[in-house]
Amino acid sequence: MAELVGNLLVAQSGGPTSVINASVAGVIREAGKNGAIEEIYGGLNGIFGILNEDLIDLNEEKNSAIEGLKYTPGAALGTCRYKIDFKNKADEAARDMDRLFEVFQAHNIRYFFYAGGNDSQDTSNQIHQEAVKRNYEMRVIGVPKTIDNDLPHTDHCPGFGSAAKYVAATTAEVALDVGGMATDEGACCIIEIMGRTAGWLAASSVLARSIGVGAPHIVLLPEIPFNEEAFLAKVKEHVDSHNFCLVAVGEGIKNTAGEELAADKSRLDAFGHPVLSGAAEHLADLVQAKLNTKTRTVKLGYAQRAAAHIASLRDIEEAVLCGEAAVRAAIEGRSGFMVKLVRSSNDPYHCATDLQDLADIANAVHLIPRDWVSEDGFLPNEKFIEYCRPLIEGETKLAYENGLPKYTVLDRVRVDKVLAPRA
Amino acid sequence: MAELVGNLLVAQSGGPTSVINASVAGVIREAGKNGAIEEIYGGLNGIFGILNEDLIDLNEEKNSAIEGLKYTPGAALGTCRYKIDFKNKADEAARDMDRLFEVFQAHNIRYFFYAGGNDSQDTSNQIHQEAVKRNYEMRVIGVPKTIDNDLPHTDHCPGFGSAAKYVAATTAEVALDVGGMATDEGACCIIEIMGRTAGWLAASSVLARSIGVGAPHIVLLPEIPFNEEAFLAKVKEHVDSHNFCLVAVGEGIKNTAGEELAADKSRLDAFGHPVLSGAAEHLADLVQAKLNTKTRTVKLGYAQRAAAHIASLRDIEEAVLCGEAAVRAAIEGRSGFMVKLVRSSNDPYHCATDLQDLADIANAVHLIPRDWVSEDGFLPNEKFIEYCRPLIEGETKLAYENGLPKYTVLDRVRVDKVLAPRA
Repeated sequence: MAELVGNLLVAQSGGPTSVINASVAGVIREAGKNGAIEEIYGGLNGIFGILNEDLIDLNEEKNSAIEGLKYTPGAALGTCRYKIDFKNKADEAARDMDRLFEVFQAHNIRYFFYAGGNDSQDTSNQIHQEAVKRNYEMRVIGVPKTIDNDLPHTDHCPGFGSAAKYVAATTAEVALDVGGMATDEGACCIIEIMGRTAGWLAASSVLARSIGVGAPHIVLLPEIPFNEEAFLAKVKEHVDSHNFCLVAVGEGIKNTAGEELAADKSRLDAFGHPVLSGAAEHLADLVQAKLNTKTRTVKLGYAQRAAAHIASLRDIEEAVLCGEAAVRAAIEGRSGFMVKLVRSSNDPYHCATDLQDLADIANAVHLIPRDWVSEDGFLPNEKFIEYCRPLIEGETKLAYENGLPKYTVLDRVRVDKVLAPRA
Repeated sequence: MAELVGNLLVAQSGGPTSVINASVAGVIREAGKNGAIEEIYGGLNGIFGILNEDLIDLNEEKNSAIEGLKYTPGAALGTCRYKIDFKNKADEAARDMDRLFEVFQAHNIRYFFYAGGNDSQDTSNQIHQEAVKRNYEMRVIGVPKTIDNDLPHTDHCPGFGSAAKYVAATTAEVALDVGGMATDEGACCIIEIMGRTAGWLAASSVLARSIGVGAPHIVLLPEIPFNEEAFLAKVKEHVDSHNFCLVAVGEGIKNTAGEELAADKSRLDAFGHPVLSGAAEHLADLVQAKLNTKTRTVKLGYAQRAAAHIASLRDIEEAVLCGEAAVRAAIEGRSGFMVKLVRSSNDPYHCATDLQDLADIANAVHLIPRDWVSEDGFLPNEKFIEYCRPLIEGETKLAYENGLPKYTVLDRVRVDKVLAPRA
C-alpha cells in the first residue's frame, strides 16, 4: 500500500454525546503522530458545514484544548442532521455530492472521519462509494457514536456508557427522593429516557437497583409492546407493597399495534421520523386516572446525552480509542469501514477495536434481545446487567473551576475558503 | 439554665434535598458529644410517622452510615407533607397535637429537631408553642432546608447550593449540546427548573454563562411577570444571531395577571397549592407556534433536588453545621428558633450560624430582589451572581462503587412502641 499524503478532515454528525469530542481528540492525537497526514481540519456542523466550505484548522488549537475535548460534552465542531438523500431528492443529492468532492479536492482532503450514528454512517458510506466511483483517492472511516447504543455489529457504542451512568445514578437519586417521601397515600414517579427504537438507555436505569432503595420497579422498553392492564397492575402492586413506584420509560414505547404511545405524528424531524415527546406524561395521566395515585414526571431530555460531569471513564477512553483506531485503519489503507468495539471478556473487562463494512451498518438497528428482559417484560435481567455494568465504570477526570466543570470551547480558526459560495 | 436530660428526636419534612441528610448527620454527631442527651431517635416520615410512633434508634446505625448520610440524597428518615391544620381542621389538629405529646412523653423526648422548609418551620413553631402551653419541657429547633432558597431571614438555605450547582452544570452541558447542533434553521431549548414562588434555583442557571457557550440566553423567574411579546422577540433575537436560544424557566412563572402560566388548577397538593407542571411545554408550544423554531424541553423535576453526585461541598458542610448548631442551641436552653445562616463576607467567603424566632419564618417567603435582575427582566445580574457563586463551590467527596455513587440506606432499627395505636 503506497503512502497517501494529504490532509485530514474530521466532522461530527447527529445528536451529540458526552464523549463525541473524545473521539475527535483521538483522531487528532493519532493523526499528529503520522507524517502522511499534513493538515488536520475540522468540518463545522458536519457535512452541512463542509458543503459551505466551513473548515477549521485543528492544529491551531491549544494542546490543552485537545485534551479538554475528552471531557467536554456537545459537539465541539458542531453537528447537523443534514442528509444527502439520493432516494427522495436525487438532483439535490447529486449536486451536494459534487460540491462535497469539490471541497475535498480544493483542500486536498485524503482522510475523512465522520463521527455519528446510523444515519451518519450511511452518509459516510455514500461518500466512500462516491470516492471510489470518482476515482478520488480518499480514505473514509466512520467513528461510532450514539447514546442509544443501537448501532449494529459493535458490542456497544461510545456515548452509551456515559449516558447509562448518568441515567442509572439519576434514577437511584430520584428513587431515594421519591421513596423518602412515600407515605400511605402512595406515589408514582415516571422518568422518561431517550431512545426511539432501542431501549438500551432506558434499560440502563436498572443498574440503580443495586444501590439506594432498589428502584426502578418497572422499566418500559420500546422493544416490548406496552400492555396497559399489566402495567397498571404492576404499578399498583408496588404502591401497595412499599408506598411508591418508580418507572423508567424509553421515550419510544409502543402499543401492541406498534404505534408510539405519545408520538406527535404531525411533527417530523429531518429524517422523517416523528418527533417524540411525552411518553412519561402519557403514562402519568394514565396512572392518575386509573389508580388515583399522585404521579410526577422527570424528562431528562438533552441533559442525559450531555452530562459529562458524570461521564464513564471507560466510555471516554473507548471513544478516544475509536478515534485513534479510525486514523490507524485509514493510514493502513482501509476505507469504507466503521470502527467497532469487540468485547472478549467481562471479568476482567476487555474490549478491542475492529472494523466493519459501512454497508453493513447503515439503517440497521441493534435492539435488546428479548431474553435479556424478564418474562413479564418489566425489567432487564442479569444478562443485560452483566453487559451494561462494565460500560459505566470509572469516573471522569474533568476539572472544576469556581464550582463548575471546566469545559473546552475551541478557538475555531477558519481555513481560508478557496471555492465560490455554494449555489 | 438547668441541664435538661432526656432523649432526642430528629425528623425530616417536605421535599428532600441533596443535603437534608447531612443536617441529620450534624444533629447526630453533635448530640453524641453531649451527656444530657440520652437516646438519639429518628422519626420516620416526619410528624406523620411520629403520630404513629414510628421511631428508629439512630445509635444502632453504623458509624459509616452516619458519615454516608452527608453524601446521600433523599430523606433517609422519610419525610411527609402532613400538616397540623388548626385553621381549617381544628378538631383533627387538636387530636394530632395531643397524640404528638403522648409520643414525646412516652419516649421522654426533650429535644426535637425538624428539618424542613416554610411549612415545616410552621409545624415546628406550633409544637414549640404547644410544649410551652402544656408546660412540657422540650426544646424545639428548626433546621432549614429547601432547594427553593425561599426561607426568610437566612442568607441562604442548605439544599440550595447543591441544586444550584446541578442546575448550572446541567444548563451549561445542555447549552453545549444544543449550541453544537444549531444550524441556520435555528433551535430553541427550554429547561424547566423547580421553584413555585421564588426563582432562586432558576436564576442559578445564569452561572452557566461563565463556562461553555455563554448560555442560558434567557432566564424566566416567577418573581417577574411574563411578557409574551418581549419574550418571543428575545428568543428570535438569539436565534437570529447565533442560531439557537437556551431558556431556563422557573416552573411557577406567572402572567401579568398573576396567574401561573401552566398551573393545572384542578390538582392541589396537601397544602392547597396547585400542582405545577408544564411551564416549559407551554413556552415550547408558544415558540413553535409563533416563531416556527424547533423547540425541545428538559424537565429536571426531582432530579435537581436529588443530584447528590454533583452536590456542593460548601452546601454539605453548611447543612452539617446547621444540624450541629441546632443541637448546641437546644443544649444551651433555646427553643422556638430556626437555625439561620449569616454571611459576613464573600471574598473570602465567610458564613456563620445564628438563630431566628420560628414565628418570623412560617409562611413568609424570600424572593429575589428586583434589582438583582437585568432591567428587561430576562437575566439575573452581577448582584445575583456574586451572591450565588460561593454557594456552589467545592466538590462532594462521595465515593463510587462499580461505577455508581455509593449511597447510604439506614438500617432503621425500630424503637419499641409503648402506646396504643393511633385512633
